[in-house]
Amino acid sequence: MTMVREEIPGYSYGTSAAGHSSVTLRELEELKASAGFTEEDEKYLRLAGQVFADQTAAIVRYWRNEIIAHIPNVTRHSRSPEAEPIPNYLAASNLRFEQWILDTCLRPYDRDWLDYQQEIALRHSSVEKNRTDGVRSTNYVPLRDALAFTTLMNETIKPYLRAKGDDEDTVERMHQAWCKSVQMQLALWVRAYLTPARDEW
Amino acid sequence: MTMVREEIPGYSYGTSAAGHSSVTLRELEELKASAGFTEEDEKYLRLAGQVFADQTAAIVRYWRNEIIAHIPNVTRHSRSPEAEPIPNYLAASNLRFEQWILDTCLRPYDRDWLDYQQEIALRHSSVEKNRTDGVRSTNYVPLRDALAFTTLMNETIKPYLRAKGDDEDTVERMHQAWCKSVQMQLALWVRAYLTPARDEW
Repeated sequence: MTMVREEIPGYSYGTSAAGHSSVTLRELEELKASAGFTEEDEKYLRLAGQVFADQTAAIVRYWRNEIIAHIPNVTRHSRSPEAEPIPNYLAASNLRFEQWILDTCLRPYDRDWLDYQQEIALRHSSVEKNRTDGVRSTNYVPLRDALAFTTLMNETIKPYLRAKGDDEDTVERMHQAWCKSVQMQLALWVRAYLTPARDEW
Repeated sequence: MTMVREEIPGYSYGTSAAGHSSVTLRELEELKASAGFTEEDEKYLRLAGQVFADQTAAIVRYWRNEIIAHIPNVTRHSRSPEAEPIPNYLAASNLRFEQWILDTCLRPYDRDWLDYQQEIALRHSSVEKNRTDGVRSTNYVPLRDALAFTTLMNETIKPYLRAKGDDEDTVERMHQAWCKSVQMQLALWVRAYLTPARDEW
């Protein structure tokens, strides 16, 4: 697997520390059907992964500095309750953010992938936020912001898909596949925000 | 307001029957910021509304017959528990589906709009599904399917944006604005699936 660093703090993909998703592989297949995610999308995600491989730092830097920094209701989730920056939190989560781009494109969508989706979701919800890095920050990322913010990520990642000179049709298909995957991941993440008492996931 | 029919069964936009959203206008502004939804997007949605105006029936027909019909885990939500079609349910909900396309493009995003987003969400959740039309069907649309399915809607609505001969840049901007709006609406809808006991919306 292509990694942005040999060691990424708090990155537990494929290990028992990543927790467990109760989503079945059959439910994953249904989710792919609902999103229209096909083998062709998988193929274009592999291509996108190669295109992104040496750009992940630039992409995450752009998201942090040019976008998140200008949206106060999003910025605060990586800051202390007193709105102070937390450099070590940012450094670690940025590396995981970078790796997430590659995982989205290059990992097989299997049991490990489902488990890590659950781990990512928990780390945004009150169940686990701040714990991985031992920091003081907001208790959770509101579900609405997680959902809404992906549109900005999807929009602004597109130019990076053009960086290797692929033709516009290929860029469009890579982008389409990316957007579908992100939406499927959101569909998985929302489960961590529901309660067993009313699980209409 | 442009309406697909003078009378649409169960369509209660702007009336007291539409219920009430607890989302504030300030939260809506924050949501727009998180999604990067700007006045330019509003402008392009108005354009898209004009492009869609005489195509809503064709679009919904396409979604129903060419997409939903081929995804069993989505089809079942408009059928009886015995998987029988329910023609009057389909007829009414298709008209509301058509009108939703126009509302997305042409309505101001204000108090009435927020209230109707809540109403739409409740009608997909166990709180209100089937009640508007007095039918027997699945108890709710699983949140994951509502989220995932929008990718197929977004993908397949794009050709209809080209129908009036707009240049590709305009089509792209209209589509971008459409996708942002749909994602903001999803961000609003998820609230109806959370419980007050753990509201990390």
